Amino acid sequence: MAITLGPNQYGKAETRVVRVYRDGGQHEIRDLNVSTLLRGDFADAHIRGDQARVLPTDSQKNTCFAFAKQKGIGQIEDYALDLARHFVNDIEPVTAARVEVEEYRWERVSVAGQPHPHTFTRAGDEVRTTAVTVSHGRSPGQSTWVVSGLRGLVLLKSTGSEFAGFLKDRYTTLAETHDRILATSLNAGWRYDPGGPHPAPWDEAYAQIRQVLVERFAEVHSLALQQTLFEMGQAVLQARDDVAEIRLSAPNRHHFLADLAPFGLDNPGEVFHAADRPYGLIQCAVQRDDAPDPGLAWDSAAAFT
Amino acid sequence: MAITLGPNQYGKAETRVVRVYRDGGQHEIRDLNVSTLLRGDFADAHIRGDQARVLPTDSQKNTCFAFAKQKGIGQIEDYALDLARHFVNDIEPVTAARVEVEEYRWERVSVAGQPHPHTFTRAGDEVRTTAVTVSHGRSPGQSTWVVSGLRGLVLLKSTGSEFAGFLKDRYTTLAETHDRILATSLNAGWRYDPGGPHPAPWDEAYAQIRQVLVERFAEVHSLALQQTLFEMGQAVLQARDDVAEIRLSAPNRHHFLADLAPFGLDNPGEVFHAADRPYGLIQCAVQRDDAPDPGLAWDSAAAFT
Amino acid sequence: MAITLGPNQYGKAETRVVRVYRDGGQHEIRDLNVSTLLRGDFADAHIRGDQARVLPTDSQKNTCFAFAKQKGIGQIEDYALDLARHFVNDIEPVTAARVEVEEYRWERVSVAGQPHPHTFTRAGDEVRTTAVTVSHGRSPGQSTWVVSGLRGLVLLKSTGSEFAGFLKDRYTTLAETHDRILATSLNAGWRYDPGGPHPAPWDEAYAQIRQVLVERFAEVHSLALQQTLFEMGQAVLQARDDVAEIRLSAPNRHHFLADLAPFGLDNPGEVFHAADRPYGLIQCAVQRDDAPDPGLAWDSAAAFT
Amino acid sequence: MAITLGPNQYGKAETRVVRVYRDGGQHEIRDLNVSTLLRGDFADAHIRGDQARVLPTDSQKNTCFAFAKQKGIGQIEDYALDLARHFVNDIEPVTAARVEVEEYRWERVSVAGQPHPHTFTRAGDEVRTTAVTVSHGRSPGQSTWVVSGLRGLVLLKSTGSEFAGFLKDRYTTLAETHDRILATSLNAGWRYDPGGPHPAPWDEAYAQIRQVLVERFAEVHSLALQQTLFEMGQAVLQARDDVAEIRLSAPNRHHFLADLAPFGLDNPGEVFHAADRPYGLIQCAVQRDDAPDPGLAWDSAAAFT
Repeated sequence: MAITLGPNQYGKAETRVVRVYRDGGQHEIRDLNVSTLLRGDFADAHIRGDQARVLPTDSQKNTCFAFAKQKGIGQIEDYALDLARHFVNDIEPVTAARVEVEEYRWERVSVAGQPHPHTFTRAGDEVRTTAVTVSHGRSPGQSTWVVSGLRGLVLLKSTGSEFAGFLKDRYTTLAETHDRILATSLNAGWRYDPGGPHPAPWDEAYAQIRQVLVERFAEVHSLALQQTLFEMGQAVLQARDDVAEIRLSAPNRHHFLADLAPFGLDNPGEVFHAADRPYGLIQCAVQRDDAPDPGLAWDSAAAFT
Repeated sequence: MAITLGPNQYGKAETRVVRVYRDGGQHEIRDLNVSTLLRGDFADAHIRGDQARVLPTDSQKNTCFAFAKQKGIGQIEDYALDLARHFVNDIEPVTAARVEVEEYRWERVSVAGQPHPHTFTRAGDEVRTTAVTVSHGRSPGQSTWVVSGLRGLVLLKSTGSEFAGFLKDRYTTLAETHDRILATSLNAGWRYDPGGPHPAPWDEAYAQIRQVLVERFAEVHSLALQQTLFEMGQAVLQARDDVAEIRLSAPNRHHFLADLAPFGLDNPGEVFHAADRPYGLIQCAVQRDDAPDPGLAWDSAAAFT
Repeated sequence: MAITLGPNQYGKAETRVVRVYRDGGQHEIRDLNVSTLLRGDFADAHIRGDQARVLPTDSQKNTCFAFAKQKGIGQIEDYALDLARHFVNDIEPVTAARVEVEEYRWERVSVAGQPHPHTFTRAGDEVRTTAVTVSHGRSPGQSTWVVSGLRGLVLLKSTGSEFAGFLKDRYTTLAETHDRILATSLNAGWRYDPGGPHPAPWDEAYAQIRQVLVERFAEVHSLALQQTLFEMGQAVLQARDDVAEIRLSAPNRHHFLADLAPFGLDNPGEVFHAADRPYGLIQCAVQRDDAPDPGLAWDSAAAFT
Repeated sequence: MAITLGPNQYGKAETRVVRVYRDGGQHEIRDLNVSTLLRGDFADAHIRGDQARVLPTDSQKNTCFAFAKQKGIGQIEDYALDLARHFVNDIEPVTAARVEVEEYRWERVSVAGQPHPHTFTRAGDEVRTTAVTVSHGRSPGQSTWVVSGLRGLVLLKSTGSEFAGFLKDRYTTLAETHDRILATSLNAGWRYDPGGPHPAPWDEAYAQIRQVLVERFAEVHSLALQQTLFEMGQAVLQARDDVAEIRLSAPNRHHFLADLAPFGLDNPGEVFHAADRPYGLIQCAVQRDDAPDPGLAWDSAAAFT
C-alpha cells in the first residue's frame, strides 16, 4: 500500500500569441490563446525536486512565440501539431504533449464600403478550438489525436421547440409546452479519425461543420434539446467521413414567459424573462460504431467541461 | 453639523427582457438588459423605514415586461423614454427616473443560403446602450436627457500607429516607436441635444455614429490614442448636428513585440504578446462650445466607467 | 458652435504591485491594484497628436513600482497621496492626479497552531479601496480629497428584515413580508473632511468604519434596505468626526422562498433560492449639512458604480 | 460504420440552494450550488425525441430544494449521496447519477465582541466541493464514489522557493533563481476509498485535509511546484487511510521582480509585479498503489479542470 505518483502533466497555459502578416497591402492577423502540457517521466521532479528533466514552462511559452514566426500560423491544427511534435521529438524526457489553441476571430473593417487594409474588429465571443495530443512510441495511427471544436456558439430559435410527454415523478411541477424558445451556448469538440484521410485544409472542415451544426439546430423541429443535439452530431458525421466522433455540451438557457395576466395583458409567446441560473445541461457524444478507442486524446478533450 | 440624507436613488437592475415579434413568417427578436432608478422624496423610507412612498423594485421589473408588450420594443431610446416618463408622470413621489438599457445583437442564421425565419445567433460582445433621464418640473428642454452609446467595440489596427516625442521623467524607460499595434475595447456615450431636432429614427443615428467611429479609428494615422479619440469624437459631432457631446473611454490594450532575438529570429512587427494588465486608459469628451449644461443626465451617464 | 475638447484624463490602470517586507523573521506582504489618472493641459496631444507634454502611462506604472520601494507601502492612503502629489508637483503639465488603490487582504497561515513566518492565504473577495485626488493651485484645504472605502462586503441576515406597507400601482404583484432574508454585497466610499483632523492612522479609521457598518447591518431591524443603509451611514458619521460624507451602494440579493407546497412540505423560512438577476439596487449618501462641496474628488469617487 | 449515440448525460446545473436553520436563538445557514447529472437509457430521447423516460431537469431542481427541507443539509457529501441515490433508486430509467455540490462559507458576524444570532459575512472565495457518483447494478463497493475537494485555495509564500537546475533547450531564456515568490490558487479533489472505513464525519476529514495541504505548502522548502504538490498529496494520504487518491491542479501565479535598476534602486526580493497570463499549470495525482480503479467516478471528477 505504498504511496506513488499518479498521472501528471505540466505546461504553460494561456499564452496570448498575436501574429500579423504584413505581406502586400492587406494585413492579416491571427489571435490565439495557446496552452501546452507535457507528459513524460517527471518522477524526479515530484519526488526529489530535481529539475534536470523539466523544460521550464517559460521555455514552452518562448517556443509558442518562436514557432509563430518560424512556422507561421496557418491553420491552428497545423500550428498545434508542429508544437506538440517538437516537444515529443526534441525534448528527451517528453513522451506526450498536448497543445490546446483557442482562436479569436476578427473581421476586417470597411471604410466607405471598401475593406480597410489593416483595421479589424473582434467578431464575437465564439471561439474556434483545437486540442492536439501527440504521443511517443505508439503506432503511427495512434500517436496523434486532433480534437477540434468551437465554444460559445450562442443559438436561439424563437419557435419550433416543444417539451412534452416527459416522465413525471412526485417532484414534477413543470407544465408541458408545445411552443417555447430554445436557446443555448454550444460547446462542441469533434475528433478526426487518425487513420482517415487527412482533413486538408482544416479550415474548410471547420467551416463546414460549424455550418452543419447551425443548420440542423435551425431545421430540426425540436422535441427536446437531446434530440436536437443528436441530430446535429449525426449530420456532422454524415457530412464528414474524417470525423470519428463529436461531443456536444449545451446549457439550456431558459427563457420563461413573463406572466402579464395580472396586468390584463395576454402573452402569446412574445415577452420572456431570460434566466441565468439554474440551467439545464445536456451532453452527448455521437460516434461511428467502428471508431478506434480515443485513448489519451479523448479523456482530455475537455469537450464536456 | 447635523447628519442628513444626501443624494439617493433606487430601482431594479438588470431585468433581462426578451421580446419576440411573431408577425408574419419572419420572427424578430429583441434582447435587452434593463435597469431602472427612481429619485424623489424618499426621506421617510431612509429615516423612518416608512415604505408608503416607495414603489417596489419588483413593480418596476413588472413594468419593464408589461411595457415590452403594451408599447413594444422598437428603438431602445423610445422604450426607455416610455418607461422613464411613466415613472415620473404616474408615480407620485418620483421626481426623476433614469432608465438604462443594454441591447444585445442577434443575427439571423442562414440555412442553405436562405435567411431562416426564426433562428438566430448572438452577434458578438458589443453592446448598444442608452441611458435616459427624465426629470419633473423643469422646463421641457431640460427635462429629458438621452445619452446613447456602445460598449465593448473591440478595434485593432496592425499598423498606422506611433508613440514618440513624449515627455520623459526619471521613471521613463519606454522606447519610442513609429509602428505599433493599436487596440482598444471602446466605450462611448453621446448626448443628444435636448433642444435640437429629434433624432428620428434613433437606430439610424446609432448606425451612423458607430460607422463614423470605426472609420475614423481606421483612417487616422495615430500619433497617440488621445489624438485618435479626439478625431473620432470630432467626426461624430461633425456628422450629427443633434449630438451635443460625446465621451470616449478607451483602454489601451497593449501588444508587446515578442523578443525573438535570443533564438536568432528577427521580428519586424509580426509576433506580439497580447497583455492583460496593466493597460493604459484614455478618456476624453468632445463637445460643442455652446452645449447646454448636462446637469442631471451627464454625471450618471457612466460613459467613463 | 465650434467643436472643442472637453474634460479628459489618462493614466495606467490596474498595475498589480506586490510588496514583501522581509525584515526580521516574519515576512509581511501587501498586495495592491493601482490605477493612476492624470489631468492637465493635454490639448496638444488630442488635437495635434503632439506628445511633448504627455508622460507615458508606462512611466506612471514604473513610478508605482519605484515608490513601493522608495516610500514603501504603509497605509494605502499614504501611498496613493505620495503618488498623486508626485505627479502634480513634479510633472509640469499635470494639474490634478487621481490615484485609485485596491488592496487585497492576506492572512498568515498557521502551522501546528503557530503563525508561519512567510506563508499566507487570500482572505476573501472583499477589497479595501482608496481614491485620492490632488489638485494644483487651489487653497490647501481644497486641493486634496481622500475617499476611502470597501467593495464586496457580502452580508446576510436570515431574519430581522421586513418589506411591507409599500406603494402599490397597477404593476404591483409583490406580497408583503415581515420576515425575509436580507443580503447584499456592499460597496461603500467615505470622504474624509479635508479641513478636519488628519485620520492617523488610516488603518484604524478603516477598521472602525468597517466594524460600524457590519454592526449596524446586524443590529438594525430592517424595514427596508434604504433604512438599513441610512442607519449604517449615520452611524459612521457619528463615530468619526473626520468623515464628511459616506456613499453606500447595495444590490439587494434576492433570496426567494422555495415553493415546497406541491410536495406536501411547509417552508417556514428555511429553504431559499438565491437569485442572480434582476436585483434591487439601493444607493444613498449620508452627509453632514456643513460638509464642503466635494468638487473634483466626489464625482469620480466611483462609490456608485 | 453506423452512426450511434455515445456517452450522454443531462441534468440541472447550478441550482442555488440556501438553507436556514432557525432552531433556538442562533441561526445557521448553508449556501450551496448544486448540479445534478443523470445517466441511463435515454436513447429514445436523443434518437426519436421521445421524452417518456426523461425526468425534467426542472424536477431535479425541485428535488434539490425538497431534499434541503426533508433531509436537511448536514454535510454536503451526505446531501449529495441522498440525492444521487434517490435518482438511481426511484427514477426507473436512471442507471447512474452524479451530483456536484459547491459550498460557500459564511462567518458569523460579531457585534460588540459577541457572535450575532442571525447575521453573517461571506468568508472568501474558496469553495468546498464534492462530486458523488452512484451507479446501479454494480457490486456495493463499486457503486458509490465520493470525490471531495476544494477550489480556489489561494496560497503564497514569500520565500522558501527555488527554481534551478532545469533542462535547457534552444528556447530557454529563464534565469535560475534560489529565492522567489511561490503562489497558486489550488484546486484539489480527493477520492475516498469506497471499501474503506466510512469517513464520519466528512466535515472533519475536510478540515483535516485542508489543514494538511496548507501546512505542507508552508513547510516544504520548494525546489519546484511539482515537488510541493507531491508532498502535499503524499501527506494527505499519510494522514487519512480512507483517501485512495488525491489530484492537485495548481496554476503557478507568477510574481516577477520589478526592475528598479534604471531608477538607481536595488530590489532584493521586495517589489513584484503580479502577472495574469500566461501562467504555469502543474497537475498531478498521488495515489495508493493498490487503489481500486476509479472507473466512472474519476473521469468526471473534474479535479483537473
